[in-house]
Amino acid sequence: MQDLLREIAEAAAAEADKGNVATYIPELAGIDTGQFGIAVATADGKLFSAGDADVPFSIQSVSKVFALALALGRVGEQIWRRVGREPSGLSFDSVLLLEREKGIPRNPFINAGALVATDTYLASSSPRAALGELLTFIRAAADDEAIHINETVALSEIATAHRNFSLAHYLASFDNLHASVDKVIGTYSHQCAVEMTCRQLAMAGRFLVDAPKMPALVSDERRRRINALMMTCGHYDGSGDFAFRVGMPGKSGVGGGILVISPSRASIAVWSPGLNPYGNSKLGTEAMQTFSHRTGWSVFGVPHRGQPHGG
Amino acid sequence: MQDLLREIAEAAAAEADKGNVATYIPELAGIDTGQFGIAVATADGKLFSAGDADVPFSIQSVSKVFALALALGRVGEQIWRRVGREPSGLSFDSVLLLEREKGIPRNPFINAGALVATDTYLASSSPRAALGELLTFIRAAADDEAIHINETVALSEIATAHRNFSLAHYLASFDNLHASVDKVIGTYSHQCAVEMTCRQLAMAGRFLVDAPKMPALVSDERRRRINALMMTCGHYDGSGDFAFRVGMPGKSGVGGGILVISPSRASIAVWSPGLNPYGNSKLGTEAMQTFSHRTGWSVFGVPHRGQPHGG
Amino acid sequence: MQDLLREIAEAAAAEADKGNVATYIPELAGIDTGQFGIAVATADGKLFSAGDADVPFSIQSVSKVFALALALGRVGEQIWRRVGREPSGLSFDSVLLLEREKGIPRNPFINAGALVATDTYLASSSPRAALGELLTFIRAAADDEAIHINETVALSEIATAHRNFSLAHYLASFDNLHASVDKVIGTYSHQCAVEMTCRQLAMAGRFLVDAPKMPALVSDERRRRINALMMTCGHYDGSGDFAFRVGMPGKSGVGGGILVISPSRASIAVWSPGLNPYGNSKLGTEAMQTFSHRTGWSVFGVPHRGQPHGG
Amino acid sequence: MQDLLREIAEAAAAEADKGNVATYIPELAGIDTGQFGIAVATADGKLFSAGDADVPFSIQSVSKVFALALALGRVGEQIWRRVGREPSGLSFDSVLLLEREKGIPRNPFINAGALVATDTYLASSSPRAALGELLTFIRAAADDEAIHINETVALSEIATAHRNFSLAHYLASFDNLHASVDKVIGTYSHQCAVEMTCRQLAMAGRFLVDAPKMPALVSDERRRRINALMMTCGHYDGSGDFAFRVGMPGKSGVGGGILVISPSRASIAVWSPGLNPYGNSKLGTEAMQTFSHRTGWSVFGVPHRGQPHGG
Repeated sequence: MQDLLREIAEAAAAEADKGNVATYIPELAGIDTGQFGIAVATADGKLFSAGDADVPFSIQSVSKVFALALALGRVGEQIWRRVGREPSGLSFDSVLLLEREKGIPRNPFINAGALVATDTYLASSSPRAALGELLTFIRAAADDEAIHINETVALSEIATAHRNFSLAHYLASFDNLHASVDKVIGTYSHQCAVEMTCRQLAMAGRFLVDAPKMPALVSDERRRRINALMMTCGHYDGSGDFAFRVGMPGKSGVGGGILVISPSRASIAVWSPGLNPYGNSKLGTEAMQTFSHRTGWSVFGVPHRGQPHGG
Repeated sequence: MQDLLREIAEAAAAEADKGNVATYIPELAGIDTGQFGIAVATADGKLFSAGDADVPFSIQSVSKVFALALALGRVGEQIWRRVGREPSGLSFDSVLLLEREKGIPRNPFINAGALVATDTYLASSSPRAALGELLTFIRAAADDEAIHINETVALSEIATAHRNFSLAHYLASFDNLHASVDKVIGTYSHQCAVEMTCRQLAMAGRFLVDAPKMPALVSDERRRRINALMMTCGHYDGSGDFAFRVGMPGKSGVGGGILVISPSRASIAVWSPGLNPYGNSKLGTEAMQTFSHRTGWSVFGVPHRGQPHGG
Repeated sequence: MQDLLREIAEAAAAEADKGNVATYIPELAGIDTGQFGIAVATADGKLFSAGDADVPFSIQSVSKVFALALALGRVGEQIWRRVGREPSGLSFDSVLLLEREKGIPRNPFINAGALVATDTYLASSSPRAALGELLTFIRAAADDEAIHINETVALSEIATAHRNFSLAHYLASFDNLHASVDKVIGTYSHQCAVEMTCRQLAMAGRFLVDAPKMPALVSDERRRRINALMMTCGHYDGSGDFAFRVGMPGKSGVGGGILVISPSRASIAVWSPGLNPYGNSKLGTEAMQTFSHRTGWSVFGVPHRGQPHGG
Repeated sequence: MQDLLREIAEAAAAEADKGNVATYIPELAGIDTGQFGIAVATADGKLFSAGDADVPFSIQSVSKVFALALALGRVGEQIWRRVGREPSGLSFDSVLLLEREKGIPRNPFINAGALVATDTYLASSSPRAALGELLTFIRAAADDEAIHINETVALSEIATAHRNFSLAHYLASFDNLHASVDKVIGTYSHQCAVEMTCRQLAMAGRFLVDAPKMPALVSDERRRRINALMMTCGHYDGSGDFAFRVGMPGKSGVGGGILVISPSRASIAVWSPGLNPYGNSKLGTEAMQTFSHRTGWSVFGVPHRGQPHGG
């Protein structure tokens, strides 16, 4: 595994086209696209990594996975009255289907749906308390008390969050937001600004790995369902392509991070800030395609016993 | 396994709400919704079944899986220039995204995309020759020469296929159909009218199971990718829900059949003609949910070694 | 004319179905739908009225006509870089086409386009100064210094303006709003809360009547063009129907008022707070249909000289 | 008037950018864009013309006006159960709103709505008989028995009418087509292939002019309403712009012809085969803008008595 990761990191370093950094969040616009890190936390408790796996980055939409887990913990399956479970087929901030479906977002991993999840775990708490709970959850998952929120990034996002404000007001116009728009956007923007390294994120993702030694933060059933949602909806209008190429549930963020789960084997984090046209990490997606091919960890073809590849 | 299937068939028989038969294909409208069959063909060569597993039914859109395999065999990955790989988020016969995306259907499992797949394997052949090839493929997969096309159903579909004619002409207006509209619709309607029993369909699905004794009709990589597409796009705008509830790749047809793949373990066919609001078999979907729960075969949480459930 | 108006007012009073009051603006929800007023200010300087023509009402979207005139006065034809001139075919607060057309609203009479017009006349002024200018314009047009803004209604609208906030942030996300969202919504909500009676509104509309004695607040060409926009876009997705039935340019408001222009003859104001399904005054629309039929003032068939009807 | 037309024709000849010919109808693709004709048939029975006013051209969608008049004659206002009266805000062959509105086209001047009108006047007749009736209507309106259908153009259109076939099947799938798709498309394509010169078309349009000596083929009310529809829907997604610039009801065709009505004054036909991006004649639209400006015939500002311009 260590050799594979090193090989992948070297291939990423050699790749000429590193994609383009998201420009709409000023704090992220200046990041060096030459960076690439990868880390794998396995079911039997090992942690492998290569490249810039200790450089902290803004997890952005990867946080939607933690937010959903927290919201499910708060209200359980009730949440599906307020948000759907279907791929949207459209970009992350589209309002088209929101209009068509009367304020019920397609799924919790597009922005509108994530705002509903944030509103759910925020409930009647203060943003500070709710974010405290989110950090507690992530730190417990990662077994790492150092994980924190980058306040500068959070404030930078709020200042330029017109599209999210638009979505939040749209939800509110359909009574699908309980807290105030300002509170929800404030909390959401801080949630997106959680900073982690690949090693931390791989550790934090272990609660979605179905293995005896993993942190048991959600029930078996809920874990499978979050994985299912990551598979069908985790990469916006590039979800089908990621499933096709990589074959594992994953959730990407505009900061260049991707969290990928091999259900019974490992939690994988990859990061490189240059994005492809779908808004997902270009080198990260390519790395995961190689990783999947080499390990045979696609859920769509579990390797034959006795074959050389695999964990 | 045999006990589980019998139990599931009994539960289905006891269920009061059996869904509603599709009315738009006259030949299907009169079918008794009280019927239910299930069959499982395992990686080690066994075949289990229960209920009406020997009653032939019209596979309808389940045929899109075979058509895609055949089209991939004909032109390989070139097909992705003419059809996408993303969930559509819309119903099976919507034109909305087709307009938005200039005649490139979202994926090969909605009707527009399936028409492109049919056009691809039809190529310059006659419809008769192309359908012969399709039957040869299916019979080889199922190891059963008795599988055939129900001509009455095929003609009934052509007579009422306005929506499919509309989609085909739409594709043709963007030069994304090479054969004539009449040929493509004729071939497609016959393809949908292939008749199989659950036992035959479970056998035919084995080419998508990643196991040494299975028929090797497509490459490893292609098999995984077809499974990925079945997971993200196999149930139209109910795909996310099926992944969420069942956690295995599947493809449903309006005739009430569903083909489900447990990648390294088995091919499963379930059939009951009453449909849920998405146009997928109601009892079939419920049966698969129970089956997944009881076997632990969701790809999103492979059962721990030593646990009692599993194949 | 006086007899005709009296007859129309009596017919309105006798009509059983008076439509439904808009409920989303609390201050308007309680209004008595039994009220009906009509007034006609003619090219030769006369003013006729009947019914509740002296009861003040909230002009709401009728204000978009004055806002457009003011914005045109400020930046001239430049405004068409930021807003279109086409009917939207959708409801007044739809975001669908806004997404499709990258933040350029379809026309200045749907809410998104009106926000751009407000932003244009607001420019770098304070909302107070800008609203002062708007009132100056309306008062000059109506020759009536008593016209004012109902502050209670304005504040009530701001408090429930989620959909407008959503549209404004959406515009801002495409850089099609120069002032802050809060300023624009604040100004817009006050603009909608201008209160007038039918007699005042009929007087205020005279600047759109092409006749020698009318107030010359806009150029000939601009007047014609505003009338053209009222014809094609003045009633949201009911614009075609209004043109079909009434045949004169008009602009309706959710407060139940409609301003209608007979280009060389008169400015007509009608008001009744109950709305039809398009969100336009039900009795007001019916009254205008009768009025058009009886006067022969449809622009689509100028009455033959010597015929009995006409002004 | 004669001088004005000559001046306009000279300006058109001098214009460098003549627009682009529609390429999707092979028979039209080769036409010389240097041609320009204009003709005006006035309420008092005069006929003026300039440029290539005697060159026959394919009237294409201008025929929708005659088809609507014929359909209204056949079933009266019942037709509005099958087709709307609202601008679509979308291009002439869009299916988007057709899906949204369950097979009811937005208006009779987009292709889908025109197919419903054709289906209506076709009713249970043979296409030959129905087209005979259409020609009888047009010849009576124009007082010219020489007007005919160009069979070569008609057949060329049928051969490439995939988009129209798609729309027709779509309508049929909602039971909004009574004759067979083939019959409707056949009839519609022949209707579009009616050939006229500007002089003939100006004469034929007189039935929409509200004046004593004009042919009385439709009632007063119906004439006004057809004019209203031409104003709001006559130029597809460029209708608002035409109303804004020209201010008269008009209907354009992809052959480069435009029929414009000055309700009580004249019927005007202009033709130049190069199109603007909306699919309307580029030089024709510009000529009508000049014509409207110079004559003051905009319905949105009837000229003051005593002013120099006007008919």
